[in-house]
Amino acid sequence: MAEKTTEKREVALVVGAGDAIGSAIARRFSQEGYVIVAVRRNGDRLQGLVEEIEAAGGEAHGWSVDARDEEAIVELFARIESEVGPLSVVVFNVGANVPMKILDTSSRKFSKIWEMACFAGFLTGREAAKTLLPRGKGSIIFTGATASVRGAAGFAAFASAKHGLRALAQSMARELAPQNIHVAHVVIDAAVDTAWIRENFLVHKSDRHDDDIVKPESIAEAYVQLHRQPRDAWTFEMDLRPWVETW
Amino acid sequence: MAEKTTEKREVALVVGAGDAIGSAIARRFSQEGYVIVAVRRNGDRLQGLVEEIEAAGGEAHGWSVDARDEEAIVELFARIESEVGPLSVVVFNVGANVPMKILDTSSRKFSKIWEMACFAGFLTGREAAKTLLPRGKGSIIFTGATASVRGAAGFAAFASAKHGLRALAQSMARELAPQNIHVAHVVIDAAVDTAWIRENFLVHKSDRHDDDIVKPESIAEAYVQLHRQPRDAWTFEMDLRPWVETW
Amino acid sequence: MAEKTTEKREVALVVGAGDAIGSAIARRFSQEGYVIVAVRRNGDRLQGLVEEIEAAGGEAHGWSVDARDEEAIVELFARIESEVGPLSVVVFNVGANVPMKILDTSSRKFSKIWEMACFAGFLTGREAAKTLLPRGKGSIIFTGATASVRGAAGFAAFASAKHGLRALAQSMARELAPQNIHVAHVVIDAAVDTAWIRENFLVHKSDRHDDDIVKPESIAEAYVQLHRQPRDAWTFEMDLRPWVETW
Amino acid sequence: MAEKTTEKREVALVVGAGDAIGSAIARRFSQEGYVIVAVRRNGDRLQGLVEEIEAAGGEAHGWSVDARDEEAIVELFARIESEVGPLSVVVFNVGANVPMKILDTSSRKFSKIWEMACFAGFLTGREAAKTLLPRGKGSIIFTGATASVRGAAGFAAFASAKHGLRALAQSMARELAPQNIHVAHVVIDAAVDTAWIRENFLVHKSDRHDDDIVKPESIAEAYVQLHRQPRDAWTFEMDLRPWVETW
Repeated sequence: MAEKTTEKREVALVVGAGDAIGSAIARRFSQEGYVIVAVRRNGDRLQGLVEEIEAAGGEAHGWSVDARDEEAIVELFARIESEVGPLSVVVFNVGANVPMKILDTSSRKFSKIWEMACFAGFLTGREAAKTLLPRGKGSIIFTGATASVRGAAGFAAFASAKHGLRALAQSMARELAPQNIHVAHVVIDAAVDTAWIRENFLVHKSDRHDDDIVKPESIAEAYVQLHRQPRDAWTFEMDLRPWVETW
Repeated sequence: MAEKTTEKREVALVVGAGDAIGSAIARRFSQEGYVIVAVRRNGDRLQGLVEEIEAAGGEAHGWSVDARDEEAIVELFARIESEVGPLSVVVFNVGANVPMKILDTSSRKFSKIWEMACFAGFLTGREAAKTLLPRGKGSIIFTGATASVRGAAGFAAFASAKHGLRALAQSMARELAPQNIHVAHVVIDAAVDTAWIRENFLVHKSDRHDDDIVKPESIAEAYVQLHRQPRDAWTFEMDLRPWVETW
Repeated sequence: MAEKTTEKREVALVVGAGDAIGSAIARRFSQEGYVIVAVRRNGDRLQGLVEEIEAAGGEAHGWSVDARDEEAIVELFARIESEVGPLSVVVFNVGANVPMKILDTSSRKFSKIWEMACFAGFLTGREAAKTLLPRGKGSIIFTGATASVRGAAGFAAFASAKHGLRALAQSMARELAPQNIHVAHVVIDAAVDTAWIRENFLVHKSDRHDDDIVKPESIAEAYVQLHRQPRDAWTFEMDLRPWVETW
Repeated sequence: MAEKTTEKREVALVVGAGDAIGSAIARRFSQEGYVIVAVRRNGDRLQGLVEEIEAAGGEAHGWSVDARDEEAIVELFARIESEVGPLSVVVFNVGANVPMKILDTSSRKFSKIWEMACFAGFLTGREAAKTLLPRGKGSIIFTGATASVRGAAGFAAFASAKHGLRALAQSMARELAPQNIHVAHVVIDAAVDTAWIRENFLVHKSDRHDDDIVKPESIAEAYVQLHRQPRDAWTFEMDLRPWVETW
């Protein structure tokens, strides 16, 4: 009996736990029984999410972590394993979509976008692999976008970083699958329902439907399903877009 | 109360209900509460499946239909709507993988493989669209393979037909999504656990795991999840392969 | 000297020698010194092309061949080898782009489009392989389109057939390359400069440039370059589009 | 006459002018009449190339430039325009293929590989665009690899960087084409004939052919053809592999 109380529940880590997708993923994995560790640069903004999850009977931790900082990411994984519990699923959800023409793209911007959208994903993915491999199981899920699979005028920096993240994910999937680590990449090929999108785009749109942009909850559902897949039938990549999206 | 008895449950149709994938999909949708219509060329081979579903409390119909026969497919949809109930999901699962060198590929073989793997998919897809569009909802799911996305030496005929089916699915997805019809394509990038595969391949393999080939039940689960997706986050394409598969 | 007169020059065959692309390819290979065999359904329409090539000092034959007719294709290759000379390059250029909604696509139309755009390509490709393999060299080039790599609303039938052709080409490339046969596929991702395009589209376009649609001569140049590639650096696929095309 | 002596010939710049591909491209564009500027980190290693080109009657400059250094790249373009002549074609050919497992990939290595294979390409591409756009013409060609289009076990860092470069190229192609700048990406899907490959791989291979690996000269030929394409038929991407390569 005594042992039972010290038995720790498995952890779902969300790196880049923004108000929309990341938070929805955290809530959804909490419903599945996972202890949530949600991190973003401004960890104080996670207080609402943590309270919400705990009010619903879950356990959640919201920390400030800059995912581009190697030391911070290494410490994050160590801290989870020592303080919270064994990791089961890691979601990398840091985005940085800033359209700009190639001549307007300073080297600083190009690098920053890559650091956020790709390099931070590498740090997260590698440390996730390092943590999960000795245990011989677990999932690592990366959030992709249209720009992950197609370059476009005005999106050189973002598409470059997102393609880089996708190639990282695909390479890791191929390398780690035989060691029972499931790596997946979700291409969200649409605008996502966020406050910013609502205020900047949807107000101009006539003939709106409630479900004409992707809801964070629907994305979260897909991530849970990916994590639950039995290992005889793993998905590396799936796309998600709303019914009205032309593609 | 009287009305209730005449209310018909929604129908899931599986075209190409073979012993492995198609049957598993039929069983799984039955568990979801759908009435099953399973068809294949030799409908008598469906008796076991129908009995199994009905023994589990479901309702199933197993009919002989040659999916390459336009008249038969048109009649199939009419019969379902008039005799069984309103269609909700249609799965096209006819396969025909026969490797052969290009010089050994007779025009008859090339045509037959296309008729089974592509043309029958067109007939099924078009009649499904015709049936679902007036009702303004429903899913059409096509089974793909590695050859759907990559040609290979010795697979000219099969890859040609499967690429053709995928393009049909993608075109239909783009055309029908705004009318609330969800079209999806699943790339099964591996051998599937069938009697034939067990007898011809796996006996020669040392160091086997029970889950080193895709189980039909796992595929069926993915199809149910696709059908259940809310329309703000539809997947057109996902791949499925076992953890040990190199790709 | 007597031997020299019986020595036959190598032959370039164009199947689907329409007024635009096919004719340009024929003219261009003639400039390279090849004897041209150009075939289309209405061979009498090839008279102008043949006269033009011969007026320029070349040798050309324009024959009526329905490329969907296996017997006719088999006879075509036999006749070339016996009457004209040894084949060096075969171009398959039959098109059939007819946009139509999925519900408006009769099985007859779906089959006819496939027969022209895919099945005829199979017959041509297989007979080309059969003819070239014993000689251990030669090129087979297939004309592709945007629909070869992407399905689209209203293009289910055409995209299905063109994807099928591309998969055939890719499979043949992989199978035949080690036997020194170069198979290539050119994705023409744009409208091509034809009388029909000029009359139906360009009249409505303001701000036209002479070179805002692909010229058949430019396509022909690419085909010659593909055929000339040394075998240490073969291209399977290249795209062609005009500078103004958005993609 | 006096004017003629001050008229400057157009320049071809090769960034990453290694002993194999880059040097071959430099020699080939020299044969086309371009003044060559070849740069690499150790510019002193370019002396042989410069002498060879000049012995053949061409004009060439070999400079030390670290392509990851923004200031150096900006200066490079300014110097070419002020001292050498108007740029016509820019080739980015910096490679950095170092296979390593994900757990062995230090953040320093991941970053260095990206800086060389992707960030340096961004700097080169942007400055090329800045230089060519006011003149309203010119080509920018990027060297890609198998890893540009497919991740693989053991290649997470390299594939990530090369995918990033390809997305940059594709985005630039789409953005700059309507302004008459031709951006292209060449996927070299094979080993290339270099001293290193000969010594490390080919000695172990039985049954060798002279042309079973890609020759730098063949790649150079493709680059010249891309640069020469008329703007009504531009290629964004083509692959190159030797006949014996399985893919």
